[in-house]
Amino acid sequence: MPQTYTYEHYTVTFPKDGVAVMEINRPGALNAFTGDMIVTMGRVFDQLATDSDCRVIILTGAGDKAFTAGLDIKQTNLGGSAASVDPARKMISELRPMLLSFQNAVTRAEKCLKPIISVLHGYSFGMAIDISTATDIRICTEDVKLSVKEVDIGLAADVGSLSRLVKVVGSMSWVKDICYSARIFGAEEALKNGLVSAVFKDKKEALEGAMKMAELIASKSPVAVQSSKEILNYSVDHSVEDGLRYTAAWNPGALQTIDIPAAVKGSLTRTKPRFEKL
Amino acid sequence: MPQTYTYEHYTVTFPKDGVAVMEINRPGALNAFTGDMIVTMGRVFDQLATDSDCRVIILTGAGDKAFTAGLDIKQTNLGGSAASVDPARKMISELRPMLLSFQNAVTRAEKCLKPIISVLHGYSFGMAIDISTATDIRICTEDVKLSVKEVDIGLAADVGSLSRLVKVVGSMSWVKDICYSARIFGAEEALKNGLVSAVFKDKKEALEGAMKMAELIASKSPVAVQSSKEILNYSVDHSVEDGLRYTAAWNPGALQTIDIPAAVKGSLTRTKPRFEKL
Amino acid sequence: MPQTYTYEHYTVTFPKDGVAVMEINRPGALNAFTGDMIVTMGRVFDQLATDSDCRVIILTGAGDKAFTAGLDIKQTNLGGSAASVDPARKMISELRPMLLSFQNAVTRAEKCLKPIISVLHGYSFGMAIDISTATDIRICTEDVKLSVKEVDIGLAADVGSLSRLVKVVGSMSWVKDICYSARIFGAEEALKNGLVSAVFKDKKEALEGAMKMAELIASKSPVAVQSSKEILNYSVDHSVEDGLRYTAAWNPGALQTIDIPAAVKGSLTRTKPRFEKL
Amino acid sequence: MPQTYTYEHYTVTFPKDGVAVMEINRPGALNAFTGDMIVTMGRVFDQLATDSDCRVIILTGAGDKAFTAGLDIKQTNLGGSAASVDPARKMISELRPMLLSFQNAVTRAEKCLKPIISVLHGYSFGMAIDISTATDIRICTEDVKLSVKEVDIGLAADVGSLSRLVKVVGSMSWVKDICYSARIFGAEEALKNGLVSAVFKDKKEALEGAMKMAELIASKSPVAVQSSKEILNYSVDHSVEDGLRYTAAWNPGALQTIDIPAAVKGSLTRTKPRFEKL
Amino acid sequence: MPQTYTYEHYTVTFPKDGVAVMEINRPGALNAFTGDMIVTMGRVFDQLATDSDCRVIILTGAGDKAFTAGLDIKQTNLGGSAASVDPARKMISELRPMLLSFQNAVTRAEKCLKPIISVLHGYSFGMAIDISTATDIRICTEDVKLSVKEVDIGLAADVGSLSRLVKVVGSMSWVKDICYSARIFGAEEALKNGLVSAVFKDKKEALEGAMKMAELIASKSPVAVQSSKEILNYSVDHSVEDGLRYTAAWNPGALQTIDIPAAVKGSLTRTKPRFEKL
Amino acid sequence: MPQTYTYEHYTVTFPKDGVAVMEINRPGALNAFTGDMIVTMGRVFDQLATDSDCRVIILTGAGDKAFTAGLDIKQTNLGGSAASVDPARKMISELRPMLLSFQNAVTRAEKCLKPIISVLHGYSFGMAIDISTATDIRICTEDVKLSVKEVDIGLAADVGSLSRLVKVVGSMSWVKDICYSARIFGAEEALKNGLVSAVFKDKKEALEGAMKMAELIASKSPVAVQSSKEILNYSVDHSVEDGLRYTAAWNPGALQTIDIPAAVKGSLTRTKPRFEKL
Repeated sequence: MPQTYTYEHYTVTFPKDGVAVMEINRPGALNAFTGDMIVTMGRVFDQLATDSDCRVIILTGAGDKAFTAGLDIKQTNLGGSAASVDPARKMISELRPMLLSFQNAVTRAEKCLKPIISVLHGYSFGMAIDISTATDIRICTEDVKLSVKEVDIGLAADVGSLSRLVKVVGSMSWVKDICYSARIFGAEEALKNGLVSAVFKDKKEALEGAMKMAELIASKSPVAVQSSKEILNYSVDHSVEDGLRYTAAWNPGALQTIDIPAAVKGSLTRTKPRFEKL
Repeated sequence: MPQTYTYEHYTVTFPKDGVAVMEINRPGALNAFTGDMIVTMGRVFDQLATDSDCRVIILTGAGDKAFTAGLDIKQTNLGGSAASVDPARKMISELRPMLLSFQNAVTRAEKCLKPIISVLHGYSFGMAIDISTATDIRICTEDVKLSVKEVDIGLAADVGSLSRLVKVVGSMSWVKDICYSARIFGAEEALKNGLVSAVFKDKKEALEGAMKMAELIASKSPVAVQSSKEILNYSVDHSVEDGLRYTAAWNPGALQTIDIPAAVKGSLTRTKPRFEKL
Repeated sequence: MPQTYTYEHYTVTFPKDGVAVMEINRPGALNAFTGDMIVTMGRVFDQLATDSDCRVIILTGAGDKAFTAGLDIKQTNLGGSAASVDPARKMISELRPMLLSFQNAVTRAEKCLKPIISVLHGYSFGMAIDISTATDIRICTEDVKLSVKEVDIGLAADVGSLSRLVKVVGSMSWVKDICYSARIFGAEEALKNGLVSAVFKDKKEALEGAMKMAELIASKSPVAVQSSKEILNYSVDHSVEDGLRYTAAWNPGALQTIDIPAAVKGSLTRTKPRFEKL
Repeated sequence: MPQTYTYEHYTVTFPKDGVAVMEINRPGALNAFTGDMIVTMGRVFDQLATDSDCRVIILTGAGDKAFTAGLDIKQTNLGGSAASVDPARKMISELRPMLLSFQNAVTRAEKCLKPIISVLHGYSFGMAIDISTATDIRICTEDVKLSVKEVDIGLAADVGSLSRLVKVVGSMSWVKDICYSARIFGAEEALKNGLVSAVFKDKKEALEGAMKMAELIASKSPVAVQSSKEILNYSVDHSVEDGLRYTAAWNPGALQTIDIPAAVKGSLTRTKPRFEKL
Repeated sequence: MPQTYTYEHYTVTFPKDGVAVMEINRPGALNAFTGDMIVTMGRVFDQLATDSDCRVIILTGAGDKAFTAGLDIKQTNLGGSAASVDPARKMISELRPMLLSFQNAVTRAEKCLKPIISVLHGYSFGMAIDISTATDIRICTEDVKLSVKEVDIGLAADVGSLSRLVKVVGSMSWVKDICYSARIFGAEEALKNGLVSAVFKDKKEALEGAMKMAELIASKSPVAVQSSKEILNYSVDHSVEDGLRYTAAWNPGALQTIDIPAAVKGSLTRTKPRFEKL
Repeated sequence: MPQTYTYEHYTVTFPKDGVAVMEINRPGALNAFTGDMIVTMGRVFDQLATDSDCRVIILTGAGDKAFTAGLDIKQTNLGGSAASVDPARKMISELRPMLLSFQNAVTRAEKCLKPIISVLHGYSFGMAIDISTATDIRICTEDVKLSVKEVDIGLAADVGSLSRLVKVVGSMSWVKDICYSARIFGAEEALKNGLVSAVFKDKKEALEGAMKMAELIASKSPVAVQSSKEILNYSVDHSVEDGLRYTAAWNPGALQTIDIPAAVKGSLTRTKPRFEKL
């Protein structure tokens, strides 16, 4: 039975078989995030992770103007409440738990074994980088305005941008330039430095491009695709030797799948196999 | 006394002083790999590693059509034999040992201290990525057809592609795109994303380019070159601090080489030194 | 009270508020480094690290010809003194301590929490790569001549180039090509592979570009900028999970800064806040 | 306002100021765990973690016979449901998620910054080791019967015992002996090998001993105690150098606590300070 | 069909079902190792690893006098041949490959998934520590004479003792004492510090003790036992978090074993199950 | 020419050939440490590290009453000066640099390649644990009063105790007990848990015991001993595989020492070789 998704600020639809589109939906505020919205986002990823109808996720922002303008600084108490007067108590019992809960919500995108494609358009500031770097594939529109914005509000990005940019992009000189300056950069620069892997004319074309990519991936063996995501994510954070060892722990189970004989047969007979849900 | 190389599916020649050309040689099957061929490949790398006549290795595929079309799926039992009925026994005593032996064979390229240049042309699928990412330098022809093909036969690439692509290429968005989709991509895309560092018109020119590069490297101090390979490979997998510490364990022995005074003298007198075999 | 900087081969000036320009100053020898100069360089970085007038550092080489031609091989005894006859004693008590002291001096650039922008021009060989890869941002002139030169004098680069290039650049194929061959490459190649993030016409324009970038960064909250540097440097060397955990240890203290309310207020009122020294 | 704890199989009481006693409460089944009980346990730890009335936790099992007899094998489907016929699908979508949720529940004990003292008595099999090795301090009764029991039901312990025993106990020879043989061992052996740090005559005395220890710890600065737990847990899993670096990220915030002047004053005046809740 | 073991210096017998006894057999030289013997030892471990008749291995030394007196220094050229005059060439092409081949042979004991019990008696110097610390369980006789002997012949132990002692023993103070002094210590000290987990009167009783332990382990599910060895060995070298993640990659395959229902049934019916070969 | 050691609070003598005794010398204050004293201690270790007359170091405290009573809390501003009012600025520019400088001073004991034996007597609180866990071997007197005292003054130990105790001692349960409670424990408990490896009647006998141990170590090849220290310290913080790889980088240089033929000859002729200074 299909699952239902009822969230105030997230819309989840399945326009194509196996492809979920998850929309950040607070367009009146340029999809800016409150603290609650961040925590809820993790729950949406968790639900999609266990929804067998979902094989690939497209992540987008509602409206024409923004993927997200970032954290809603009017509604978030970045420096903690005034109530606690001891800096150490504020640190340990208020700010750190809040931070960990935000980080955890974003990390759910990484833990979800289904590939996630972020479609960045318009204002894509702060949280836009935090979230999209935790997803698998980033594409954008020509008009995108990207920024690691946190320095401009007096803090180091702490929901993942700094820890993930150094892994998803090759040029450290560029990463540090954009992180220290909080300057706005566009599609061309993002593509040149590998932050995104494709640029489309506008949001409509970008979503079409994402859908095409998603359908292609959704047509593959989900055992193969999800195993690939887990092994890639493990490998980024470990030595080559450890990556191989982890693969040799994972795949001897996964290789016993019925998808391999089906795929091999399809390959030899040049017919397209259909793979069961996972 | 020069070593001899007698392998059914590998040809090894020394067209230039210090430069070995190792050819994957099963052109009738687009150089596709059987399991035995993979294991044997590790032995060829091991022999070259200890052959003092060899300073640099060029790795290529026989024929015009392919570096390699990948695993020969007709001759490899990817999911294990039907004999074992317990999934755990099949996993531990059959599939994992097979996988470890394949991984180990490919890793011999990395353990060999002599630089290896992969020349990719034509079909370069699956194993082509597994193997070439374990070598040092990748160049290709304009007509190359590259693919991380494994998802198309129902499995996550497990002989190294996933664990090494994340280290040799900067853009994670692109790596995940090609790994999840198994789509075929060409020279331009490989160059733009840094998977290869040069593109040549055709196989002939690519081999000439590789040879030029190989001769240049072979003319340098082998102590310096091989120490560089070991330190680079260690550094990719460790923190900067650990990389420096490892260098400080290795180089105080290597710096006592007779090559340094020879090289310094050559540099000051603008004459080209000749370095002894290693 | 402003600090004074008195070093034979380093000039430190503060042409703009918060921006230090540190010049390697031995132009008669193409700014080549003696062993003493390397060790002293670490002390300059340490002094700048604790100088509250300094928020950003621009690192450049005196004169028109070179950032630095590298190690002064006439004045450095690379292979150790002839005095010690036991290779093990030479290794442990002479070469390793020398190497560690050189590495430590370069690493001071990384440990200094203020962002450092390297402006590479003319000859930028050997030590130029060692040092600039330990800084945050690299830009260069069109005429720059870059080379990981160490192989040409018979050794593996051991003051950091090998351990840091694999972290700051995405394409391993290119890194190994330049490290094994010691070949000279130019601005375009450096930009394409992400070693530098911008190219300027000549040294004058590059310094102006660096200054503009430095002033922008210096105008931001130093708490935010310096926290970002520390978290980025930690993250490059650790898993994403560890990066997040470290951020969650660091930021709950840093988020209590008075800069955040000032920055938020500035952002909401569209006025530019001024941040206190750190 | 004090929190309430309403769980079917866990009783939480606060017999002394700051000291929570958490009891595994299913004595009719020797406190054996169903899958639901494991997941719920994580929620109890999470609630205690954020309950400012709680400074130290004592973990015990209800009744005289057992801390816990381990997993309730009649109510847990260890090998997964028969429904899924593809070994790979069963692995990825059923067994791994179940395993991760169990592991996560146990890890909540480690993530909770309040020290946890496990009091082991009677049957303490399987899950007893998984859970207690995730807590901080282990004490036991003279009659305790300990066993890493999992091998006896055909599996490798996978909820933490194997990964944590190698960290909390010094002798690997002994760890492997008890893990491979699943043999039952007693208090003396546990004490000799450092698995527990104290042995008491019976459950009553052990709980009194735990209470004394807990009250002592609860009387200290919670900033100091909780910072110590976090730094110790980080340090076990990282190099000394990383441990120091993490400490230097954490403590500069925590050192600004009002507890230090209070403690120092208490120390100098030989009066006992009282520390605020955290 | 049972395998045969024909090695000059190793005897392999199967006195009990599933239990192999591997004897180092050069009693005329106190079982001292030549270089060839070390390399061969790795092959014996590899053969046992794939011999399905073998579930547990007991490692012992022939004769009454010694497990092994260590390296045969008369027959091993520790410092390399005189032929090579360049210290760097001797280092890279002669000493390091020799060292790696010795290390690899010893590591085969660790890679073999079957538990190995070392029975140490009489002279157990140098290589005795290198090898036995790579095995799982160490027991000894009352008369054992143990020594990390390498310092006495002018070198740091390099075949594994130093890297493994710090993992298998808890007290670093004691490890450094025995490593720096090369002093001979006995059974009591080895037991107290956890290097061995049991002491027996003499070799006969120790072998009987080992046999009893081996038979017990051999009677358990080999899926459970071998999975435990792999997960323990991984966990020693990784963080708890990584250990859990690796377990969650391995076990979802292994949990599908037919041994679990058999074991559970045996447990519930109090009958002893018999587990198939692996 | 022998070096001279002139420090206000450290006395360095050479009572035996190759053995330095370094005494913490502020007996009027129970050898309590001011901040300056900590920083200076690092310089003493650095001087001894490069003093070829020194092969082994014995570290002790002046007077009968204490190794050290710990930090002199009257003279150290643990929470930072009142001057800085921004918690983030106090954290980044005052407390963290102070902490790093203290940590670095203690770490110099670890970086010094000469073995250091700590002789703990009387009050051995706080810094006593920080420092002695950074040395190699710990012995104590029967009257020693040990305590990880920091929690009692409101902070987590941050100069190394927490990060090193988890490495030098096997029982985590005990480590957490002493760290959370700050309770005083004695020689027996320290010995049982492996924190010290020997206990002597009083300071006189402990120093004699240390001297005997030091002379034994000083009589060995310093190449072998110092290589062992470096490899052990590396191995504690890395995987076994990395430990072996590091050894294989270090030893091929060190094995070329003249000490090996001297030691082998001595061993075969049963004469005691004399090894040159390093």
